[in-house]
Amino acid sequence: MVSAPTPARAGQRRRRGATRRGIQQLPWKQPRRAFPPVDLLSADEIEHIHNASLDILADIGMEFLSPAACAILKKAGCDVDETNANVRFDREMVAQTIKSAPSHFTLHARNPERNLQIGGNFMAFSCISSPPNASDMDDGRRVGNTKDFKNFLKLAQHFNTIHCLGGYPVEPVDRHASIRHLECLRDMITLTDKVISGYCTSQARTTDAMTMARIARGVDHEQFQREPSIMTVVNTNSPLRFDGEMLNGIMEMSAQGQVVIVTPFTLAGAMAPVTLAGALAQQNAEALAGIVMTQLVRPGAPVIYGGFTSNVDMKSGAPAFGTPEYMKGAIIGGQLARRYNIPYRSSNVNAANTVDAQAAYESVFSLWGLTMGGANLVKHAAGWMEGGLTASFEKFVLDADLLQMVSQFLEPVEVTDDTLALDAIRDVGPGGHFFGTQHTLDRYRTAFYAPLISDWRNYESWEEAGSPVAWQKANTIFKQVIEDFVPPPIEPAIGDEIDAFVQKRIEAGGSKTDF
Amino acid sequence: MVSAPTPARAGQRRRRGATRRGIQQLPWKQPRRAFPPVDLLSADEIEHIHNASLDILADIGMEFLSPAACAILKKAGCDVDETNANVRFDREMVAQTIKSAPSHFTLHARNPERNLQIGGNFMAFSCISSPPNASDMDDGRRVGNTKDFKNFLKLAQHFNTIHCLGGYPVEPVDRHASIRHLECLRDMITLTDKVISGYCTSQARTTDAMTMARIARGVDHEQFQREPSIMTVVNTNSPLRFDGEMLNGIMEMSAQGQVVIVTPFTLAGAMAPVTLAGALAQQNAEALAGIVMTQLVRPGAPVIYGGFTSNVDMKSGAPAFGTPEYMKGAIIGGQLARRYNIPYRSSNVNAANTVDAQAAYESVFSLWGLTMGGANLVKHAAGWMEGGLTASFEKFVLDADLLQMVSQFLEPVEVTDDTLALDAIRDVGPGGHFFGTQHTLDRYRTAFYAPLISDWRNYESWEEAGSPVAWQKANTIFKQVIEDFVPPPIEPAIGDEIDAFVQKRIEAGGSKTDF
Repeated sequence: MVSAPTPARAGQRRRRGATRRGIQQLPWKQPRRAFPPVDLLSADEIEHIHNASLDILADIGMEFLSPAACAILKKAGCDVDETNANVRFDREMVAQTIKSAPSHFTLHARNPERNLQIGGNFMAFSCISSPPNASDMDDGRRVGNTKDFKNFLKLAQHFNTIHCLGGYPVEPVDRHASIRHLECLRDMITLTDKVISGYCTSQARTTDAMTMARIARGVDHEQFQREPSIMTVVNTNSPLRFDGEMLNGIMEMSAQGQVVIVTPFTLAGAMAPVTLAGALAQQNAEALAGIVMTQLVRPGAPVIYGGFTSNVDMKSGAPAFGTPEYMKGAIIGGQLARRYNIPYRSSNVNAANTVDAQAAYESVFSLWGLTMGGANLVKHAAGWMEGGLTASFEKFVLDADLLQMVSQFLEPVEVTDDTLALDAIRDVGPGGHFFGTQHTLDRYRTAFYAPLISDWRNYESWEEAGSPVAWQKANTIFKQVIEDFVPPPIEPAIGDEIDAFVQKRIEAGGSKTDF
Repeated sequence: MVSAPTPARAGQRRRRGATRRGIQQLPWKQPRRAFPPVDLLSADEIEHIHNASLDILADIGMEFLSPAACAILKKAGCDVDETNANVRFDREMVAQTIKSAPSHFTLHARNPERNLQIGGNFMAFSCISSPPNASDMDDGRRVGNTKDFKNFLKLAQHFNTIHCLGGYPVEPVDRHASIRHLECLRDMITLTDKVISGYCTSQARTTDAMTMARIARGVDHEQFQREPSIMTVVNTNSPLRFDGEMLNGIMEMSAQGQVVIVTPFTLAGAMAPVTLAGALAQQNAEALAGIVMTQLVRPGAPVIYGGFTSNVDMKSGAPAFGTPEYMKGAIIGGQLARRYNIPYRSSNVNAANTVDAQAAYESVFSLWGLTMGGANLVKHAAGWMEGGLTASFEKFVLDADLLQMVSQFLEPVEVTDDTLALDAIRDVGPGGHFFGTQHTLDRYRTAFYAPLISDWRNYESWEEAGSPVAWQKANTIFKQVIEDFVPPPIEPAIGDEIDAFVQKRIEAGGSKTDF
């Protein structure tokens, strides 16, 4: 249904992010859930978990491996034991402190059309981040490198259903760790125009990321502090420990009014109790402790409640994802975040080693849980495999299709006299068909979702075409997108300022490492 | 975790339905949804669809290709035009007549332990029915035959998550159509002990099926009429037509108090309007007309509201399943059925040609829609491929796994002081792990769902094992189940009576055909 492009039209389409060969996709839009999220637990049961997590914080405490963080917490009335860095929290202080966290905020991209609403019934899908490996079906699995890193950024920019970057879509280990963040952030800013994320694995990396996000937007310090423009994930070292780097990340990012996603890593049976209620109580305690920290640093700092509770395979200890336990954890996590009126982050996860039925069903079960659970930010929304160890190019395209389907599912059904189509039903009458009616002709082009991957040919045609399986279509598409990619425009002055900053920081040694 | 079986224990386990080689599965249980179903439309919008469907029935009317049915409808006050078999319904009569349909009933199996609750928040998963082809990855796709038919029955009996038979899991076309129903029903009754279904494609087939269901249960006519013991699907010939065989099926089955599942075949864009609201208005009109018919025949006759609305690919006209439109249709269908307080049927569908990622994601999207939409009976729950043209052995096992996951997802999360595990969290403390704690040791065997298919080995172990994909594990399992199959016990007298009935009816020519 796409007519042959003239050179001018093709150029225009490419600037909009479509490919020369017209891979169809949905337009840029954040999905919004028009129905209430599902509550698996009663309000009483949520209070029971809430109280248990306050008991954990008050009676057991958490390790905060940062003297600076401990000082802030002590000043706020926490009981700090300096000998073992243990911090116990007053229940009432926790309840009062988290109240200043905003329920909703705008997250700014360098292209204002890519700004995101975080909170309420909005969803935002974020690209996979941080796996050490990349894979495609042509060349197999390999350690992440700069070429793969850039190619994933091209996919992330191309697909409208990817709303932001959650970090490095794969670790480019061929870039030295001291300067990797500078080169990667430059690529993220120039190959995409979407919201970016930084890593808070050192103070230099955190501040460099914020500086580059500010330069990319072309705003001054004051405006940057007022307008959240970059995210970082702060994981707890579960159970009950915050490492110094993570605490430093909170203190740096929150002080600048930037977005901290506090995500406990509570795999039930391993780093958390084997019971889902216990794992969620621990998740909640750790998340609340991090959220308290953000608000002590700067009341009103944007923060996201992260849920990542899943389970391990008790036979092998291997992490499992997209399980029934994960679905329940994702939904109850949403109930807890809403208990505190704080935006909620979940993830599109699976533990498959290849892009087969398992990869698909574990992912869709994850999306089921997190969508019905009211997730606002979906990390690892496209490309994740092997419990996060690999970014797959085929899985990325498959996930883009799954995310588009979730978005279409969330589009409300219009019930009007026109859509109820009584005239068409009358015209067609018993035993007829609707293919040729005006009601159909007026609407058929956009009536239904057009999938990227699904092969709906009949068996005979499909067999004649060589019996292709789903990943093969994904393989064709990802290569087309990369081949046809045109970077989004950037103001030359901003591009130059980014280059100059990266150059200066590389000359200064970047973030010091001991290798 | 299963110790080596002694002969006696192995026999015991096999009688319980497990295989000699100990394929683990969940115990027999009907899932129950503990949370309210999702409403995509407001009550006003549902009324709008309801009123549109009454307008269709009152102003356009439906074709009823059965003089006997027309006579019943005329007597009930319908406006019947005998020249074109068109029946128009009085709005108030429809509203009043459907009120006698039960909101909930027990469906009886020959083994009372397999009785099903139909309605409320109960779900029942029914085996695939009626595809013309069977397939497995060893021998490919072929026309359905008796061996494949029986093998699917063995899978249906083996898997506890399959609660009933929806018809023939594949058409055994090597059996002559005149006697196929007799031989197939005998197989269904002897190879399984679960609720069965019959076809109402002729009067003889309908009455034979009911007779055999009654004999299998060992009950008299009176008890049989009181206790629903067999189901049939009555499809409309959409748009707006009931064929004579289908109407005869309603009249025969409802008269005997047996279960009719009225299912309009409303593919938006082909046999129904291209707009979802219009397709659902038409579905609702056709379903209500069939439900009215059941209640006119016998007030209180058990009936199920069937929803099958999906869309076609407007480029090719091919039916599409597991789409966003299907999900919305499945959920709104549930809202409509609940509007009338009648149990709701939906289906686990996909349009894939092979057991790849597409087959998996389209199925899970279907399960997502129908589960959140409150489906009570799920037809084609295991084995369906190619929009219903093929029953796949590997897909059957994959679906059994998906259904088990849905069941586990629906199991409530227990929130108690014990499951909140504060003592375990205290004992483990910051930075520890939960693998060895007593709280874990007491629970790890049953804490998490153990999948049939998912391969959670790390990449290296998986690669060493030959990089298997999901369908390969399903292939191994289906062959094990068939090889190890032991039929469920049947009382010899009942088995003899079934044999005698089949023999007598075969000698009498079965259901007459003209070939």
